[in-house]
Amino acid sequence: MTLKLYFDFLSQPSRALFIFLKLNKIPFEACSVALRNGVHLTDEFKTKFNRFQKVPFIHDREFKLSESVAIIRYLAREYNLDNKWYPKDSKKQAQVDEYLEWQHNNTRAFCALYFQKKWLFPLLTGEPPVPEQLQKFEDNMISTFNNIENIWLADTPFLSGNEVSVADIFAACEIEQPRIAGFEPRQGRPKLAAWLDRVRNEANPYYDEAHTILNKMAKKGGQAKL
Amino acid sequence: MTLKLYFDFLSQPSRALFIFLKLNKIPFEACSVALRNGVHLTDEFKTKFNRFQKVPFIHDREFKLSESVAIIRYLAREYNLDNKWYPKDSKKQAQVDEYLEWQHNNTRAFCALYFQKKWLFPLLTGEPPVPEQLQKFEDNMISTFNNIENIWLADTPFLSGNEVSVADIFAACEIEQPRIAGFEPRQGRPKLAAWLDRVRNEANPYYDEAHTILNKMAKKGGQAKL
Repeated sequence: MTLKLYFDFLSQPSRALFIFLKLNKIPFEACSVALRNGVHLTDEFKTKFNRFQKVPFIHDREFKLSESVAIIRYLAREYNLDNKWYPKDSKKQAQVDEYLEWQHNNTRAFCALYFQKKWLFPLLTGEPPVPEQLQKFEDNMISTFNNIENIWLADTPFLSGNEVSVADIFAACEIEQPRIAGFEPRQGRPKLAAWLDRVRNEANPYYDEAHTILNKMAKKGGQAKL
Repeated sequence: MTLKLYFDFLSQPSRALFIFLKLNKIPFEACSVALRNGVHLTDEFKTKFNRFQKVPFIHDREFKLSESVAIIRYLAREYNLDNKWYPKDSKKQAQVDEYLEWQHNNTRAFCALYFQKKWLFPLLTGEPPVPEQLQKFEDNMISTFNNIENIWLADTPFLSGNEVSVADIFAACEIEQPRIAGFEPRQGRPKLAAWLDRVRNEANPYYDEAHTILNKMAKKGGQAKL
Protein backbone atom coordinates (compact mmCIF):
# COMPACT_ATOMS: atom_id res chain seq x y z
CA MET A 1 0.00 0.00 0.00
CA THR A 2 1.61 3.31 -1.06
CA LEU A 3 -0.84 5.64 0.70
CA LYS A 4 -0.73 5.79 4.49
CA LEU A 5 -3.26 7.73 6.54
CA TYR A 6 -2.15 8.67 10.04
CA PHE A 7 -5.14 9.44 12.22
CA ASP A 8 -6.85 9.27 15.61
CA PHE A 9 -10.61 8.68 15.77
CA LEU A 10 -10.84 11.30 18.54
CA SER A 11 -9.63 13.94 16.04
CA GLN A 12 -12.46 15.50 14.03
CA PRO A 13 -10.60 16.01 10.71
CA SER A 14 -9.09 12.51 11.10
CA ARG A 15 -12.59 11.05 11.06
CA ALA A 16 -13.62 13.20 8.09
CA LEU A 17 -10.60 12.13 6.08
CA PHE A 18 -11.05 8.44 6.96
CA ILE A 19 -14.70 8.58 5.84
CA PHE A 20 -13.77 10.45 2.62
CA LEU A 21 -11.15 7.85 1.71
CA LYS A 22 -13.53 4.96 2.38
CA LEU A 23 -16.43 6.51 0.44
CA ASN A 24 -14.17 7.06 -2.55
CA LYS A 25 -12.72 3.54 -2.36
CA ILE A 26 -9.18 4.90 -2.23
CA PRO A 27 -6.93 2.10 -0.92
CA PHE A 28 -4.88 3.14 2.09
CA GLU A 29 -3.05 1.76 5.09
CA ALA A 30 -4.77 2.95 8.26
CA CYS A 31 -2.06 4.03 10.73
CA SER A 32 -3.56 4.83 14.11
CA VAL A 33 -1.74 7.48 16.18
CA ALA A 34 -2.80 7.43 19.84
CA LEU A 35 -2.63 11.14 20.73
CA ARG A 36 -3.63 10.31 24.31
CA ASN A 37 -0.26 8.55 24.72
CA GLY A 38 1.65 11.58 23.41
CA VAL A 39 3.46 9.61 20.70
CA HIS A 40 3.27 12.66 18.41
CA LEU A 41 5.27 14.85 20.81
CA THR A 42 8.70 13.28 20.22
CA ASP A 43 11.47 14.72 18.05
CA GLU A 44 11.49 11.49 16.06
CA PHE A 45 7.80 11.97 15.19
CA LYS A 46 8.51 15.56 14.13
CA THR A 47 11.36 14.53 11.85
CA LYS A 48 10.06 11.29 10.40
CA PHE A 49 6.27 11.67 10.43
CA ASN A 50 4.83 15.19 10.61
CA ARG A 51 6.70 18.44 11.29
CA PHE A 52 3.55 19.92 12.85
CA GLN A 53 3.11 17.02 15.31
CA LYS A 54 -0.62 16.71 14.68
CA VAL A 55 -3.02 14.36 12.96
CA PRO A 56 -4.31 13.69 10.36
CA PHE A 57 -1.59 13.55 7.72
CA ILE A 58 -0.64 11.28 4.85
CA HIS A 59 2.49 9.74 3.44
CA ASP A 60 2.15 8.94 -0.25
CA ARG A 61 5.42 7.09 -0.85
CA GLU A 62 7.99 9.85 -0.17
CA PHE A 63 5.46 12.72 -0.22
CA LYS A 64 4.33 13.95 3.19
CA LEU A 65 1.25 16.16 3.49
CA SER A 66 -0.67 17.55 6.45
CA GLU A 67 -3.83 19.67 6.65
CA SER A 68 -6.95 17.60 5.99
CA VAL A 69 -8.48 19.98 3.44
CA ALA A 70 -5.25 20.14 1.42
CA ILE A 71 -5.16 16.34 1.57
CA ILE A 72 -8.66 15.78 0.16
CA ARG A 73 -7.83 18.14 -2.74
CA TYR A 74 -4.56 16.32 -3.40
CA LEU A 75 -6.30 12.95 -3.38
CA ALA A 76 -9.09 14.26 -5.63
CA ARG A 77 -6.41 15.13 -8.21
CA GLU A 78 -4.30 12.01 -7.77
CA TYR A 79 -7.30 9.67 -8.03
CA ASN A 80 -9.08 11.83 -10.63
CA LEU A 81 -12.24 12.01 -8.52
CA ASP A 82 -15.34 13.63 -9.95
CA ASN A 83 -18.40 12.86 -7.86
CA LYS A 84 -20.76 14.43 -5.39
CA TRP A 85 -18.19 14.23 -2.58
CA TYR A 86 -15.79 16.56 -4.38
CA PRO A 87 -17.12 17.62 -7.79
CA LYS A 88 -14.88 18.76 -10.66
CA ASP A 89 -17.44 21.26 -11.92
CA SER A 90 -15.79 24.58 -11.15
CA LYS A 91 -18.74 26.35 -9.49
CA LYS A 92 -19.85 23.27 -7.54
CA GLN A 93 -16.31 22.70 -6.31
CA ALA A 94 -16.08 26.38 -5.32
CA GLN A 95 -19.22 25.99 -3.19
CA VAL A 96 -17.73 22.97 -1.42
CA ASP A 97 -14.46 24.86 -0.96
CA GLU A 98 -16.33 27.89 0.41
CA TYR A 99 -17.55 25.85 3.36
CA LEU A 100 -14.21 24.05 3.82
CA GLU A 101 -12.48 27.43 4.16
CA TRP A 102 -15.21 29.02 6.29
CA GLN A 103 -15.21 26.19 8.82
CA HIS A 104 -11.65 26.74 10.08
CA ASN A 105 -12.52 29.79 12.14
CA ASN A 106 -16.11 28.76 12.80
CA THR A 107 -17.21 25.12 13.17
CA ARG A 108 -13.67 23.79 13.55
CA ALA A 109 -12.39 26.41 15.97
CA PHE A 110 -15.46 26.74 18.17
CA CYS A 111 -16.52 23.10 18.54
CA ALA A 112 -12.91 22.14 19.25
CA LEU A 113 -12.34 24.95 21.76
CA TYR A 114 -15.52 24.09 23.66
CA PHE A 115 -14.56 20.39 23.72
CA GLN A 116 -11.05 21.17 24.93
CA LYS A 117 -12.03 23.70 27.61
CA LYS A 118 -15.03 21.78 28.91
CA TRP A 119 -13.69 18.24 28.84
CA LEU A 120 -10.14 17.63 27.61
CA PHE A 121 -8.05 20.17 29.55
CA PRO A 122 -9.85 19.58 32.89
CA LEU A 123 -9.19 15.85 32.43
CA LEU A 124 -5.51 16.41 31.63
CA THR A 125 -4.82 19.06 34.28
CA GLY A 126 -7.32 18.22 37.02
CA GLU A 127 -8.47 21.86 36.97
CA PRO A 128 -12.12 22.65 36.25
CA PRO A 129 -12.93 25.21 33.51
CA VAL A 130 -13.52 28.87 34.44
CA PRO A 131 -17.34 29.26 34.09
CA GLU A 132 -17.32 32.70 32.37
CA GLN A 133 -14.66 31.56 29.89
CA LEU A 134 -16.54 28.36 29.17
CA GLN A 135 -19.75 30.31 28.61
CA LYS A 136 -18.00 32.43 25.98
CA PHE A 137 -16.78 29.31 24.18
CA GLU A 138 -20.27 27.80 24.35
CA ASP A 139 -21.80 31.03 22.98
CA ASN A 140 -19.38 31.00 20.05
CA MET A 141 -20.20 27.37 19.32
CA ILE A 142 -23.94 28.01 19.47
CA SER A 143 -23.53 31.01 17.18
CA THR A 144 -21.82 28.69 14.67
CA PHE A 145 -24.68 26.18 14.94
CA ASN A 146 -27.09 29.04 14.25
CA ASN A 147 -25.11 30.06 11.19
CA ILE A 148 -25.25 26.50 9.89
CA GLU A 149 -28.99 26.32 10.55
CA ASN A 150 -29.89 29.79 9.23
CA ILE A 151 -27.32 30.53 6.54
CA TRP A 152 -25.74 27.33 5.21
CA LEU A 153 -28.91 25.24 5.39
CA ALA A 154 -31.29 28.14 4.66
CA ASP A 155 -32.37 26.97 1.19
CA THR A 156 -30.71 23.61 0.59
CA PRO A 157 -30.62 20.17 2.24
CA PHE A 158 -26.81 20.13 2.33
CA LEU A 159 -24.18 22.79 3.04
CA SER A 160 -23.09 23.29 -0.55
CA GLY A 161 -26.38 22.70 -2.33
CA ASN A 162 -28.75 19.88 -3.17
CA GLU A 163 -26.14 17.14 -2.98
CA VAL A 164 -24.08 15.89 -0.09
CA SER A 165 -20.35 16.66 -0.30
CA VAL A 166 -17.17 16.37 1.70
CA ALA A 167 -18.11 19.75 3.25
CA ASP A 168 -20.99 18.03 5.07
CA ILE A 169 -18.66 15.31 6.33
CA PHE A 170 -16.18 17.81 7.72
CA ALA A 171 -18.96 19.81 9.39
CA ALA A 172 -20.68 16.77 10.89
CA CYS A 173 -17.43 15.38 12.32
CA GLU A 174 -16.83 18.69 14.11
CA ILE A 175 -20.39 18.97 15.38
CA GLU A 176 -20.33 15.45 16.86
CA GLN A 177 -17.26 16.30 18.98
CA PRO A 178 -18.88 18.35 21.83
CA ARG A 179 -21.14 15.33 22.54
CA ILE A 180 -18.12 13.82 24.34
CA ALA A 181 -18.27 16.83 26.66
CA GLY A 182 -21.98 16.29 27.31
CA PHE A 183 -23.34 18.86 24.83
CA GLU A 184 -26.04 17.56 22.46
CA PRO A 185 -26.01 19.72 19.28
CA ARG A 186 -29.21 18.10 17.92
CA GLN A 187 -31.31 19.28 20.85
CA GLY A 188 -33.59 22.20 19.96
CA ARG A 189 -32.24 22.34 16.40
CA PRO A 190 -34.57 20.23 14.22
CA LYS A 191 -33.04 21.44 10.94
CA LEU A 192 -29.48 20.71 12.02
CA ALA A 193 -30.55 17.37 13.51
CA ALA A 194 -32.29 16.28 10.28
CA TRP A 195 -29.24 17.35 8.25
CA LEU A 196 -26.89 15.39 10.55
CA ASP A 197 -29.07 12.31 9.98
CA ARG A 198 -28.95 12.81 6.22
CA VAL A 199 -25.15 13.14 6.26
CA ARG A 200 -24.80 10.03 8.41
CA ASN A 201 -27.05 8.04 6.06
CA GLU A 202 -25.13 9.19 2.99
CA ALA A 203 -21.75 8.43 4.59
CA ASN A 204 -22.56 5.13 6.26
CA PRO A 205 -21.32 2.53 7.11
CA TYR A 206 -18.07 4.53 7.40
CA TYR A 207 -19.63 7.38 9.39
CA ASP A 208 -20.63 5.02 12.17
CA GLU A 209 -17.32 3.18 11.97
CA ALA A 210 -15.37 6.42 12.50
CA HIS A 211 -17.69 7.50 15.33
CA THR A 212 -17.81 4.23 17.30
CA ILE A 213 -15.47 5.40 20.06
CA LEU A 214 -17.03 8.88 20.18
CA ASN A 215 -20.55 7.45 20.47
CA LYS A 216 -19.47 5.22 23.35
CA MET A 217 -17.89 8.19 25.13
CA ALA A 218 -20.90 10.45 24.46
CA LYS A 219 -23.15 7.93 26.22
CA LYS A 220 -21.35 8.77 29.44
CA GLY A 221 -22.75 12.32 29.32
CA GLY A 222 -19.49 14.19 29.70
CA GLN A 223 -18.05 11.77 32.28
CA ALA A 224 -15.98 9.63 29.89
CA LYS A 225 -12.27 9.17 30.52
CA LEU A 226 -9.49 9.08 27.94
CA MET B 1 -16.37 43.63 -16.62
CA THR B 2 -17.97 40.39 -15.45
CA LEU B 3 -15.77 39.80 -12.39
CA LYS B 4 -16.20 42.10 -9.42
CA LEU B 5 -13.92 42.00 -6.39
CA TYR B 6 -15.36 43.48 -3.21
CA PHE B 7 -12.60 44.37 -0.80
CA ASP B 8 -11.18 46.73 1.83
CA PHE B 9 -7.43 47.41 1.90
CA LEU B 10 -7.52 47.17 5.71
CA SER B 11 -8.60 43.51 5.38
CA GLN B 12 -5.65 41.12 5.09
CA PRO B 13 -7.24 38.54 2.72
CA SER B 14 -8.66 41.43 0.64
CA ARG B 15 -5.13 42.65 -0.01
CA ALA B 16 -3.93 39.12 -0.81
CA LEU B 17 -6.72 38.56 -3.31
CA PHE B 18 -6.23 41.97 -4.95
CA ILE B 19 -2.50 41.26 -5.40
CA PHE B 20 -3.19 37.74 -6.73
CA LEU B 21 -5.65 39.07 -9.33
CA LYS B 22 -3.26 41.78 -10.47
CA LEU B 23 -0.25 39.45 -10.70
CA ASN B 24 -2.26 37.04 -12.82
CA LYS B 25 -3.61 39.82 -15.06
CA ILE B 26 -7.19 38.75 -14.39
CA PRO B 27 -9.44 41.66 -15.38
CA PHE B 28 -11.79 42.74 -12.58
CA GLU B 29 -13.83 45.64 -11.34
CA ALA B 30 -12.42 46.82 -7.99
CA CYS B 31 -15.37 47.48 -5.66
CA SER B 32 -14.18 49.07 -2.44
CA VAL B 33 -16.25 48.30 0.69
CA ALA B 34 -15.53 50.70 3.54
CA LEU B 35 -15.87 48.41 6.56
CA ARG B 36 -15.15 51.37 8.86
CA ASN B 37 -18.50 52.87 7.77
CA GLY B 38 -20.38 49.64 8.55
CA VAL B 39 -21.90 49.37 5.06
CA HIS B 40 -21.60 45.57 5.28
CA LEU B 41 -23.86 45.36 8.33
CA THR B 42 -27.18 46.09 6.60
CA ASP B 43 -29.80 43.50 5.61
CA GLU B 44 -29.54 44.72 2.03
CA PHE B 45 -25.83 43.91 1.98
CA LYS B 46 -26.54 40.46 3.41
CA THR B 47 -29.15 39.70 0.76
CA LYS B 48 -27.63 41.31 -2.31
CA PHE B 49 -23.89 41.15 -1.71
CA ASN B 50 -22.57 38.62 0.80
CA ARG B 51 -24.58 36.50 3.22
CA PHE B 52 -21.64 36.44 5.64
CA GLN B 53 -21.30 40.26 5.68
CA LYS B 54 -17.54 40.20 5.35
CA VAL B 55 -14.93 41.00 2.73
CA PRO B 56 -13.40 39.91 0.43
CA PHE B 57 -15.88 38.23 -1.91
CA ILE B 58 -16.50 38.12 -5.64
CA HIS B 59 -19.44 38.30 -7.97
CA ASP B 60 -18.76 36.55 -11.26
CA ARG B 61 -21.91 37.49 -13.21
CA GLU B 62 -24.59 35.74 -11.13
CA PHE B 63 -22.18 33.59 -9.13
CA LYS B 64 -21.38 34.84 -5.63
CA LEU B 65 -18.43 33.44 -3.72
CA SER B 66 -16.82 34.32 -0.40
CA GLU B 67 -13.74 32.92 1.38
CA SER B 68 -10.53 34.19 -0.18
CA VAL B 69 -8.85 30.78 -0.48
CA ALA B 70 -11.89 29.26 -2.21
CA ILE B 71 -11.88 32.28 -4.53
CA ILE B 72 -8.26 31.90 -5.66
CA ARG B 73 -8.90 28.22 -6.43
CA TYR B 74 -12.04 29.08 -8.38
CA LEU B 75 -10.21 31.75 -10.38
CA ALA B 76 -7.28 29.40 -11.02
CA ARG B 77 -9.75 26.99 -12.66
CA GLU B 78 -11.79 29.60 -14.52
CA TYR B 79 -8.70 31.33 -15.95
CA ASN B 80 -6.78 28.06 -16.41
CA LEU B 81 -3.82 29.37 -14.40
CA ASP B 82 -0.65 27.31 -14.18
CA ASN B 83 2.22 29.33 -12.83
CA LYS B 84 4.33 29.77 -9.72
CA TRP B 85 1.54 31.65 -7.92
CA TYR B 86 -0.78 28.63 -8.01
CA PRO B 87 0.81 25.68 -9.83
CA LYS B 88 -1.21 22.92 -11.47
CA ASP B 89 1.38 20.26 -10.64
CA SER B 90 -0.44 18.13 -8.07
CA LYS B 91 2.29 17.94 -5.42
CA LYS B 92 3.33 21.58 -5.79
CA GLN B 93 -0.29 22.70 -5.53
CA ALA B 94 -0.71 20.50 -2.45
CA GLN B 95 2.23 22.25 -0.79
CA VAL B 96 0.70 25.66 -1.49
CA ASP B 97 -2.66 24.40 -0.21
CA GLU B 98 -1.02 23.00 2.92
CA TYR B 99 0.00 26.49 3.99
CA LEU B 100 -3.31 28.07 2.90
CA GLU B 101 -5.16 25.63 5.18
CA TRP B 102 -2.68 25.86 8.04
CA GLN B 103 -2.81 29.67 8.17
CA HIS B 104 -6.48 29.93 9.19
CA ASN B 105 -5.89 28.92 12.77
CA ASN B 106 -2.34 30.24 12.93
CA THR B 107 -1.14 33.32 10.99
CA ARG B 108 -4.66 34.47 10.12
CA ALA B 109 -6.24 33.96 13.54
CA PHE B 110 -3.38 35.20 15.70
CA CYS B 111 -2.24 38.27 13.74
CA ALA B 112 -5.86 39.38 13.37
CA LEU B 113 -6.72 38.79 17.04
CA TYR B 114 -3.70 40.76 18.21
CA PHE B 115 -4.54 43.61 15.81
CA GLN B 116 -8.18 43.67 16.95
CA LYS B 117 -7.50 43.47 20.68
CA LYS B 118 -4.55 45.87 20.71
CA TRP B 119 -5.78 48.52 18.28
CA LEU B 120 -9.20 48.08 16.63
CA PHE B 121 -11.50 47.30 19.56
CA PRO B 122 -9.99 49.94 21.90
CA LEU B 123 -10.49 52.49 19.10
CA LEU B 124 -14.11 51.44 18.54
CA THR B 125 -15.10 51.07 22.20
CA GLY B 126 -12.80 53.54 23.96
CA GLU B 127 -11.78 50.76 26.36
CA PRO B 128 -8.11 49.80 26.62
CA PRO B 129 -7.14 46.11 26.24
CA VAL B 130 -6.75 43.92 29.34
CA PRO B 131 -2.93 43.52 29.64
CA GLU B 132 -2.93 39.79 30.54
CA GLN B 133 -5.30 38.99 27.68
CA LEU B 134 -3.28 41.04 25.22
CA GLN B 135 -0.10 39.28 26.34
CA LYS B 136 -1.70 35.92 25.53
CA PHE B 137 -2.64 37.12 22.06
CA GLU B 138 0.85 38.50 21.53
CA ASP B 139 2.39 35.20 22.67
CA ASN B 140 0.23 33.27 20.20
CA MET B 141 1.23 35.60 17.38
CA ILE B 142 4.92 35.34 18.23
CA SER B 143 4.61 31.55 18.36
CA THR B 144 3.20 31.67 14.82
CA PHE B 145 6.11 33.86 13.66
CA ASN B 146 8.48 31.31 15.17
CA ASN B 147 6.73 28.49 13.31
CA ILE B 148 7.08 30.41 10.06
CA GLU B 149 10.75 31.08 10.77
CA ASN B 150 11.67 27.61 12.07
CA ILE B 151 9.30 25.23 10.25
CA TRP B 152 7.94 26.79 7.06
CA LEU B 153 11.16 28.60 6.13
CA ALA B 154 13.50 25.98 7.63
CA ASP B 155 14.92 24.70 4.33
CA THR B 156 13.42 26.85 1.59
CA PRO B 157 13.31 30.55 0.63
CA PHE B 158 9.49 30.51 0.34
CA LEU B 159 6.72 28.85 2.36
CA SER B 160 5.95 26.13 -0.15
CA GLY B 161 9.39 25.54 -1.60
CA ASN B 162 11.90 27.25 -3.84
CA GLU B 163 9.38 29.40 -5.68
CA VAL B 164 7.13 32.14 -4.44
CA SER B 165 3.40 31.31 -4.44
CA VAL B 166 0.08 32.71 -3.36
CA ALA B 167 0.76 31.13 0.06
CA ASP B 168 3.53 33.70 0.60
CA ILE B 169 1.19 36.55 -0.38
CA PHE B 170 -1.49 35.42 2.08
CA ALA B 171 1.08 35.04 4.86
CA ALA B 172 2.76 38.38 4.21
CA CYS B 173 -0.54 40.27 4.13
CA GLU B 174 -1.41 38.86 7.57
CA ILE B 175 2.02 39.55 9.03
CA GLU B 176 1.94 43.20 7.89
CA GLN B 177 -1.31 43.80 9.81
CA PRO B 178 -0.01 44.11 13.42
CA ARG B 179 2.27 46.94 12.23
CA ILE B 180 -0.84 49.18 12.39
CA ALA B 181 -0.99 48.34 16.09
CA GLY B 182 2.67 49.29 16.56
CA PHE B 183 4.16 45.77 16.44
CA GLU B 184 7.09 45.32 14.03
CA PRO B 185 7.25 41.64 12.97
CA ARG B 186 10.59 42.12 11.17
CA GLN B 187 12.41 43.13 14.34
CA GLY B 188 14.68 40.39 15.72
CA ARG B 189 13.61 37.98 12.98
CA PRO B 190 16.19 38.27 10.17
CA LYS B 191 14.91 35.20 8.31
CA LEU B 192 11.30 36.34 8.35
CA ALA B 193 12.35 39.89 7.45
CA ALA B 194 14.38 38.71 4.44
CA TRP B 195 11.50 36.50 3.31
CA LEU B 196 9.02 39.41 3.59
CA ASP B 197 11.34 41.49 1.38
CA ARG B 198 11.54 38.69 -1.17
CA VAL B 199 7.74 38.34 -1.26
CA ARG B 200 7.30 42.11 -1.65
CA ASN B 201 9.81 42.19 -4.52
CA GLU B 202 8.11 39.29 -6.29
CA ALA B 203 4.64 40.79 -5.84
CA ASN B 204 5.41 44.43 -6.62
CA PRO B 205 4.17 46.93 -7.73
CA TYR B 206 0.86 45.48 -6.50
CA TYR B 207 2.14 44.61 -3.03
CA ASP B 208 3.00 48.23 -2.32
CA GLU B 209 -0.24 49.42 -3.93
CA ALA B 210 -2.33 47.20 -1.63
CA HIS B 211 -0.30 48.24 1.43
CA THR B 212 -0.25 52.02 0.84
CA ILE B 213 -2.85 52.82 3.51
CA LEU B 214 -1.42 50.28 5.95
CA ASN B 215 2.11 51.67 5.56
CA LYS B 216 0.85 55.19 6.26
CA MET B 217 -0.96 53.99 9.37
CA ALA B 218 2.02 51.91 10.55
CA LYS B 219 4.19 55.04 10.50
CA LYS B 220 2.10 56.40 13.35
CA GLY B 221 3.41 53.64 15.63
CA GLY B 222 0.06 52.33 16.85
CA GLN B 223 -1.52 55.81 17.15
CA ALA B 224 -3.31 55.85 13.77
CA LYS B 225 -7.06 56.50 13.65
CA LEU B 226 -9.59 54.83 11.38
